[in-house]
Order: sequence, then C-alpha cells, then structure tokens
Amino acid sequence: MKRIVFVLIAATIMACVVAFTAPASGRANGEAAPVFGVKLPPGYRDWKLISVAHEEGDLNDLRAILGNEMAVKAYRVGKLPFPDGTVIARLAWSHVPSEQNNKAFGRVQSFVAGPPTNVQLMVKDSRKYASTGGWGFAQFKDGKPDEKAALKTCFPCHEPAKARDFVFTNYAP
Amino acid sequence: MKRIVFVLIAATIMACVVAFTAPASGRANGEAAPVFGVKLPPGYRDWKLISVAHEEGDLNDLRAILGNEMAVKAYRVGKLPFPDGTVIARLAWSHVPSEQNNKAFGRVQSFVAGPPTNVQLMVKDSRKYASTGGWGFAQFKDGKPDEKAALKTCFPCHEPAKARDFVFTNYAP
Repeated sequence: MKRIVFVLIAATIMACVVAFTAPASGRANGEAAPVFGVKLPPGYRDWKLISVAHEEGDLNDLRAILGNEMAVKAYRVGKLPFPDGTVIARLAWSHVPSEQNNKAFGRVQSFVAGPPTNVQLMVKDSRKYASTGGWGFAQFKDGKPDEKAALKTCFPCHEPAKARDFVFTNYAP
Repeated sequence: MKRIVFVLIAATIMACVVAFTAPASGRANGEAAPVFGVKLPPGYRDWKLISVAHEEGDLNDLRAILGNEMAVKAYRVGKLPFPDGTVIARLAWSHVPSEQNNKAFGRVQSFVAGPPTNVQLMVKDSRKYASTGGWGFAQFKDGKPDEKAALKTCFPCHEPAKARDFVFTNYAP
C-alpha cells in the first residue's frame, strides 16, 4: 500500500515537473527517421486535433492525434484516400493519476498527461511510399528518431485498416 | 459475458457512427449559457491542444483541453494569472473500447473517443467575473447551454486550484 502511494505521488510529481518545465511547441531537430526518411515537421504540436485515445497495458498512455491542414480538411470532407501531403501526428504521454483532480472530484478517477512517451507520424506520398500504402512512418522520442527496427512493424500493423487508407483514427466530433 | 460483449460491440458501433457522420468543427449556435452569459466561441474545435485527460467512474470519458491563442501563449510564457481574453475549452467524449485497435495490438487495451458528452468553457474577464476568480464558466451539450444548476458547482470545484489561477490543466509537452 505504501509502495502504491509512493508510486502515485512520484508520478504526480513527475507530471508536474514536466508540465512546468517543458512547455515546448513540438521539438523538431531536423533529424530524419530511418527507413522512410521522415522528419518531425516544425510546429506539429500546434496542429488541429483529430481525436484522443487511451492505451492500457504496457503502453499505459494518453494520446492526441493531430493533423496538418491537409489531414484535417480530408477528414472533414470524408473522402479517401488521404491526399499527398497529409501528415498525421500521434502524440502520447504517460497516463498518470492526478491527486489534485481526484481531490476536486472527491473520488479516485482522474488521469492526466504525464511525461511524453513518443510521437509517431504518418506522411502521405503515394509515389515515394507506394510499397507501404502510400504512407511513410516515423517514431520520435524526445525529438530524436527511433531506431530502424521499430519502423518495420508500422505498416503490417496498419494493414488491417486498408479500407480506411490504413488510418485507424476517426475524427472526434 | 454476452451482455458485456453486446455493450462493447454497441459502443464500438456508436463510436463509428458518430465518427463518420459528424465531422463538425465545433458547433456554435450563439446561445449564451446561464449565470455567466458565456457563448460557444466559433472555431473552438480547431484551437490548439493544451493537454488530454481521462476520467473514470460515472464520467467515463476521454478529454481534450484546447485553448485560444491567448491561452496557449499564457501557458508557454508560464505567467499567472491568465490575461483577460483567455478562453480554455474542455471537450469530452465517451471512453469507448476499440475492437479494431485491439485486434491490431493483439490484446484488449485500446480506448477511443466515442460520442461527445459535453464541452466546458472557462473565460477570463477579471472585472466581469470578479466574484469567481475572474473566470466565467459554461457547459454545453450538443452545442446547447446546460441548465443553470450545473454552473453553480464550477467555481467551488475550481477553488482548490487557486494558486494556479483556478485552472487544473497543465500544458502537455
């Protein structure tokens, strides 16, 4: 029990430290991710919101799916496939309990975004990425591209969503 | 067990129906909420993301906290109190399981935004709303303001966050 309380307090403190020290607008250091050569686009942190999500289990995260102007327009028109130039960014943060919010609600129920885990990108270029459904994939941690091996799994995992141009996320109204 | 499966399937279908039929950009019908007279600002659905959250229990939702330009700028500068003109919008959707995502991950762990529940607003006007910490509060369901009673609880609930100008949400880096 003590251990659980300690973990909860530690997670809350971590969340606060992160929230108060890093109000960055999406780091984009220009380094291209392997395999697809995708870079973190400047200003992606300020893109419009497509939807939110939550993964339990090992990932244990809260997610925001943002899109560039072309992505958001395509979602609104509702026409598939997404046009070349579409970029979808999936940001994720640790799913951490909020003691402060729990107190306000009077019960243990609140989870907020803790430290960021990683950022994944899908970039549409139907010629360049013809062999992977027209999409290039990338994953960044702390603004730096993740290793090659991690990207091999992207397209196979997205293949079941072929009927929706390999994109899992729906627009949240 | 059958009932649980049925509920899961029904929730997934609801989420799909909503996602494919209502790609709206934030409804703003101009009707002011009671008590504080706050209206839904046009285009709020496209505001920049401040953070995400998840409430369990009766609320059972996924949340995105968006801000107008003044709000986002204030978060980045990190200076309190928020300036007059700041508007923070908390959007919430039902927290529904995603069968499709669970299949892709190979385990039951995925939750996505289902039907929207409500939108809450905090509007900073230090003179107009002097008696409630400088904030006006509003809640909208399906674009229509919620009844008066619901708004009486806003400020008392936010009071514990006085040291942070009555705002619970931190900026997610």
